[in-house]
Amino acid sequence: MTETTLNIAEDDPVLGTDFATEMVRQMRALDSYGSFDNWPSNKILDPFVLTREQKREIPVVGDPDEIVMSRVKAFYNAIAALIEKECGLMAVPTINMTDEGFGRALITVGKLVVMDKTVRDVHRFGFPTLSKMKDEADKILSVALEIVGDYPKVAGL
Amino acid sequence: MTETTLNIAEDDPVLGTDFATEMVRQMRALDSYGSFDNWPSNKILDPFVLTREQKREIPVVGDPDEIVMSRVKAFYNAIAALIEKECGLMAVPTINMTDEGFGRALITVGKLVVMDKTVRDVHRFGFPTLSKMKDEADKILSVALEIVGDYPKVAGL
Repeated sequence: MTETTLNIAEDDPVLGTDFATEMVRQMRALDSYGSFDNWPSNKILDPFVLTREQKREIPVVGDPDEIVMSRVKAFYNAIAALIEKECGLMAVPTINMTDEGFGRALITVGKLVVMDKTVRDVHRFGFPTLSKMKDEADKILSVALEIVGDYPKVAGL
Repeated sequence: MTETTLNIAEDDPVLGTDFATEMVRQMRALDSYGSFDNWPSNKILDPFVLTREQKREIPVVGDPDEIVMSRVKAFYNAIAALIEKECGLMAVPTINMTDEGFGRALITVGKLVVMDKTVRDVHRFGFPTLSKMKDEADKILSVALEIVGDYPKVAGL
């Protein structure tokens, strides 16, 4: 893949946010062979952005492979890391997938469920833009922090 | 397998409990081909009981297969069903396994985590007796109901 085909620009301002930094950290953590070592952030996060055309090329029904699953995990791990950073309590992500690409993603803080999402079509996981991806993460983060704020005792258990 | 090799006696009093009834229901639900249709309860639940010798025959390190995984799921599904029956609120089990037989089993009621267990050595899943299995389920059930009692508002979310 040449640089020109990347969906995220090298100077995309979203790359400077806490969220993108955490996403890059999560992706590097999964990269056991150091393939990403010399890659810029926009290249590492590129697979998370799927243009409408790229999405159309993926069959509607399909089994998610390990690589896609690791991206889904990286996304929720990053959100959990940001929740933890904001509220100072450990946030634990759990993703339970069936083979057909359907499943449930949970983030818990103490005994509190701060995110509970049904995930589907995981083999087509991706966002139209990096900014839309950050919006989704921000939404989950703010709801999670609100729940922790409402029930700090349960979150502290 | 002849009747004489079963680990659970046909007249084991534990078979009459709510827990065993629910376990049999869960196992029958997984039995798509109706193989259990004419089996007595003690035969259906037999694989959950492993004598010390049977356990010794299973290698210490191993990958859990689909059949063992379905038993683990049946066990936590049954507990979730009992929690639901007792507190009247939906209890949702989630089991997240890695390929190596390690993982996390959660049961949530509303936004409350009522059980959170690290599971390991899943390929050797089993209890010394049916009664010990029920004890374990009872313990989880009573802790779960206590948590729901402490935080009914979060459980009702």
